[in-house]
Amino acid sequence: MKAITQQIISLINERMEIAKEIGEIKQELSLNIIDDKIEQEIKNYILKESDRKGLDPEFAGRIINLLINESVKIQKSEINRKIQSNNLNKVNNNAFFKGIEKKNPSSPSNNIFSDIKIKTHMDVFNKAKQLDSLGQKIIHMEVGEPDFSPPNQVKDELNLIYDKHKYHYTETAGINNLRKKLAIYLTNFNNNKINPEICPENIIATVGGRFAIFCTFSSVLKPGDEIIVIEPAWPAYKDIANYLGVKTKVISTSLDEKWEPDISIIENSININTKIICLNYPNNPTGKILDEEKLQRIIELAKKNNLLILSDEVYCNFAYKKFTSILKFPYEKSIMIGSFSKTYSMTGFRVGFAYSLNKNLINKINKIQSLSLTSVAEPMQYCALAALSYNPIEYNNIMKKRIDFVCSKLNSLPFEFIYPDGAMYVFVKINENLGIDDLTLIEKLLHKGVAIAPGSGFGETYKNYIRISTCIDEEKLGKGLDIINQIVTSL
Amino acid sequence: MKAITQQIISLINERMEIAKEIGEIKQELSLNIIDDKIEQEIKNYILKESDRKGLDPEFAGRIINLLINESVKIQKSEINRKIQSNNLNKVNNNAFFKGIEKKNPSSPSNNIFSDIKIKTHMDVFNKAKQLDSLGQKIIHMEVGEPDFSPPNQVKDELNLIYDKHKYHYTETAGINNLRKKLAIYLTNFNNNKINPEICPENIIATVGGRFAIFCTFSSVLKPGDEIIVIEPAWPAYKDIANYLGVKTKVISTSLDEKWEPDISIIENSININTKIICLNYPNNPTGKILDEEKLQRIIELAKKNNLLILSDEVYCNFAYKKFTSILKFPYEKSIMIGSFSKTYSMTGFRVGFAYSLNKNLINKINKIQSLSLTSVAEPMQYCALAALSYNPIEYNNIMKKRIDFVCSKLNSLPFEFIYPDGAMYVFVKINENLGIDDLTLIEKLLHKGVAIAPGSGFGETYKNYIRISTCIDEEKLGKGLDIINQIVTSL
Repeated sequence: MKAITQQIISLINERMEIAKEIGEIKQELSLNIIDDKIEQEIKNYILKESDRKGLDPEFAGRIINLLINESVKIQKSEINRKIQSNNLNKVNNNAFFKGIEKKNPSSPSNNIFSDIKIKTHMDVFNKAKQLDSLGQKIIHMEVGEPDFSPPNQVKDELNLIYDKHKYHYTETAGINNLRKKLAIYLTNFNNNKINPEICPENIIATVGGRFAIFCTFSSVLKPGDEIIVIEPAWPAYKDIANYLGVKTKVISTSLDEKWEPDISIIENSININTKIICLNYPNNPTGKILDEEKLQRIIELAKKNNLLILSDEVYCNFAYKKFTSILKFPYEKSIMIGSFSKTYSMTGFRVGFAYSLNKNLINKINKIQSLSLTSVAEPMQYCALAALSYNPIEYNNIMKKRIDFVCSKLNSLPFEFIYPDGAMYVFVKINENLGIDDLTLIEKLLHKGVAIAPGSGFGETYKNYIRISTCIDEEKLGKGLDIINQIVTSL
Repeated sequence: MKAITQQIISLINERMEIAKEIGEIKQELSLNIIDDKIEQEIKNYILKESDRKGLDPEFAGRIINLLINESVKIQKSEINRKIQSNNLNKVNNNAFFKGIEKKNPSSPSNNIFSDIKIKTHMDVFNKAKQLDSLGQKIIHMEVGEPDFSPPNQVKDELNLIYDKHKYHYTETAGINNLRKKLAIYLTNFNNNKINPEICPENIIATVGGRFAIFCTFSSVLKPGDEIIVIEPAWPAYKDIANYLGVKTKVISTSLDEKWEPDISIIENSININTKIICLNYPNNPTGKILDEEKLQRIIELAKKNNLLILSDEVYCNFAYKKFTSILKFPYEKSIMIGSFSKTYSMTGFRVGFAYSLNKNLINKINKIQSLSLTSVAEPMQYCALAALSYNPIEYNNIMKKRIDFVCSKLNSLPFEFIYPDGAMYVFVKINENLGIDDLTLIEKLLHKGVAIAPGSGFGETYKNYIRISTCIDEEKLGKGLDIINQIVTSL
């Protein structure tokens, strides 16, 4: 046993020596350290081998991932060592070298040192908040947080929490009444009676929709697995996947194609490691809604390849054309993510939920939520339960009016866009003639007191786009759009 | 590269084949699968080897741990397979075999088949709740949830949340005022002015103390790493470590040694993969408080070995002798976990926090909390802030009186225990003459309407212990203890 273990370590050492050499060669040829194709090739080969030999392929996959990660680490440090010694040769003034970040902000070598930069809508939000606190009045068109008050029922509930002692540990899945009422709500969603009825046992209340996604990914995915994300997309899917060592295969959609995903491209991107297709309709940031037939085709594809579909439907109550939920299809390997954040304007309450026909998946999510935080705060669960008594159609109507208003104003600007099918954003292409990218435009706008979200935060290829959020009233929206108008006409 | 990787997998496969054979031998000789000594021997040898060869020993250690874990898994399943086939040979009546759990509850083979079983205080809690809902009146002495109302300030705050619009996304680290007030509170904790003062930037509000621990482990540990846990202990440390593929090295303490951990045993259990020492004083379940000198020696040990100390101090406000917080020692690699759950009787609000001198660690936790759930619910943060205006000394006094009461009653029972230094439990050894283990006793007590927690839930070696929680009033405690008295005297 000792001898074999020793041999294993010897070989691993040999492998790392080779990795070091390859690192040097890559550096000389300016090649990328990570070569997806070769990695996948090695992995597929080994998985086949270990399967043939009766070794648990999952375990073998983990070992391979460790080896590959260590190789990448070694190659990176080898390259960094080289760059550093090159730099040291070039720069004799050591003091200058240490201060390079501040003194030489636009030099390409700066990328190695700079850390904080605006990249997503959240970065803009944080910067805008900073400016707010310095006394500047910022018009917030960057963040997806409706300005409505939550339903009055929530206020009444908050006043009851203390006297009714609703502040204890609860079942991890959430209090019974909340899950029961959610089951009825979902069964009858959109007057579209779901058959068979949705059971409370297949629902779990989570700390926001985000935590439902985090737990789903954590329970289904292992390092080295892959998910499919249709872009432009909310960055969380990719971020969570990255965190878990999971690879994101991006399917790009375009304004020209009316944000329709191409099924054949999705199909071609599926391989042995693919585990989840993420859908998010009504879409953030485009507002796109998939029609029923397209959704069905994606489900067929998932069935054929035994993939889980995660359908993030947190914007389902903001729909300006017919919206079909994944709930309509009794596909066992699907999970629907919902939230009180947008529907009832309750972002800060942090209550979301997940529903799946697959009880086993709900149990796994339950296990992770139990392990990591016990349950959603009981007072917040009761507020969510209270909100379910309110019909949020009014919020939908107001949002639609704002979308109309913004779109009519945008028509006279050098932008291209499609009227959104749903959600609370307009995703806008900056006319190429303006010769400006999203981040530069956003910087200029922030200086003038308007915060909007950069397109590139929703996918690398969207740096000619901005996302305008309609979560403030028309007066403010009007002012913001006027400032945008001033800026772009002065370019 | 491919060839070497293939060779590695071949050898790993060979190693697992041997593991399988060893599993069979161990089964025949009735040996334990896990042999810490041999494991450590193999590990030390390999670490020396890899160090000699220039391979990162940490990386090598992780690989070894993965190999060992897989070996254990294979050996366990091998043994289970054998037992199962033996049973099948013995039991020809298949119908009986399916029903074995109910019909043959005390047979040793039963362990393999039963899935849902009482193992921890949470299992008892769930079972007791079930009985509650069936109309049985259960005396709850199993769960750590004080019966006090939260401070009145919390009630007032709940009534303000809606009108003051305190229900939005917040900074992931928590609202400024909460962190500021926490910093002042911690700096002056126990009238023990901390120097230098604690800064709000080094604090993060989390979804309960549990999530602070989950995020700390997640940001510091990799599969194959190790943590040290002093038992008896709250099971969460081990559970979270298991979930992350991290090994827990257990340091057992005993009633005879007054629950004092032996520093030299801790020292001997440290190896290159050890990353964290977990402390939890006042301790759940024993109530033990470490004296300052012992704490200092553990910190020295951590310093010497560059280990993080996670000090879970959620019971710090229930101390019946002098309690010294880790805060007193400006050790950069330490993190203190606190919570509003026990101190202010706010379990269901799910607000805890972490403090570390190491800003980098707080940032890492921040990143995981941001990624997974954005932030703690804003209304709950404001309630926590309000609670900080209240001095919880009264809760402490009541709890101490209850502990006195329980201990005085326990004195006349065939139990052994030490008067707890803090927390809200008495950890009690069942007299060996009674010839009954914790789970059997608990089952009997539940039938008579008393729920208590099994010792084995706090560490495998404590199956002769029970934990009595003092979170209900003296009248109920008295009734519960009377029933316990009846049961044990009738044994």
